[in-house]
Amino acid sequence: MKLLEEMIIKYGKVYPNDVLKIDSFLNHQIDIKLMFEIGKEFKRIFNDCKPDKILTIEASGIGIATAVSTYFDYCPVVFAKKDRALNMFNETYQSKEISYTRGSTKLIEVSREYLSENDNILIIDDFLANGEALNSLLDICRQAKCNVLGCGIVVCKTYQPGLKRIEKLGYRVECLAKIKSMDNGEIYFE
Amino acid sequence: MKLLEEMIIKYGKVYPNDVLKIDSFLNHQIDIKLMFEIGKEFKRIFNDCKPDKILTIEASGIGIATAVSTYFDYCPVVFAKKDRALNMFNETYQSKEISYTRGSTKLIEVSREYLSENDNILIIDDFLANGEALNSLLDICRQAKCNVLGCGIVVCKTYQPGLKRIEKLGYRVECLAKIKSMDNGEIYFE
Repeated sequence: MKLLEEMIIKYGKVYPNDVLKIDSFLNHQIDIKLMFEIGKEFKRIFNDCKPDKILTIEASGIGIATAVSTYFDYCPVVFAKKDRALNMFNETYQSKEISYTRGSTKLIEVSREYLSENDNILIIDDFLANGEALNSLLDICRQAKCNVLGCGIVVCKTYQPGLKRIEKLGYRVECLAKIKSMDNGEIYFE
Repeated sequence: MKLLEEMIIKYGKVYPNDVLKIDSFLNHQIDIKLMFEIGKEFKRIFNDCKPDKILTIEASGIGIATAVSTYFDYCPVVFAKKDRALNMFNETYQSKEISYTRGSTKLIEVSREYLSENDNILIIDDFLANGEALNSLLDICRQAKCNVLGCGIVVCKTYQPGLKRIEKLGYRVECLAKIKSMDNGEIYFE
């Protein structure tokens, strides 16, 4: 997606340890017009899909998913919660997100009420690098016996293992911007 | 807002310690059509306002603010972050949210880059009870020398002190559903 790549080049900041920050339009301040362009693009790509629900993860995923939903008949968005107290929900599907970069483990949860067997799910998330968050969302969908139609990712670092790992599991993953390297602080797309 | 009140009555769950859960359409699963109805209603109420930015707080605020923004020329949304590691940002405005209900203190942060002096800000949030989160957002706006046009709240418990506290400070607060009591698990609106 050309507009997105242009914005990443213009506003993205590369920090040590391979960290890309796009806080100015996606992860802290949100460019709402861009969110709807992203929604339109996912609609074009997943045009054959009729999701019952969109599944994402807090926090940045929520703005994206809200815009995407408007292109899929305003289907409900469910956002997975991170690191909540266990007593917040009576019954949840849970998955552990192992963060290689941070060396820590987080609990990802979705209430059992909001995912049903055979639900057709479109997963939407902001970043895919090692695939930790996406893997947790897929794990939760497996537990809930949902049918995952595909995964729509805004920014993917294709030189990290996440994309290949998840495609190898048989899932359809579509990424709007694919970064093939960030050597010396320069961002290169595929 | 009649539709919202109906949904709160139909789907809201009242738990001990005066907790209202509306997880099925606002705080975990999100009814996207409703978000846009909420956006339309805030536009009607704040029709005279021309915000440069909408300020909200993660996580549930993000979906609401995304929809609201579309009625205000797609102005950028900035969401405050909760409990982030301090080294996540170079420079942030910070405020402490003292939670009376949980007896704990949280750090609320917004990067200094995304709020500028004299920015016209519309604050949007999901709940107002004791006013802790809203107070923190207002504190951050004061630090950034922003001009707060108003605060749009989806659900307010008017029998708790938040609304009065913040109106007393001179801010305009508009609430779409005002709950006057939840005695015996029954929800009553003003």
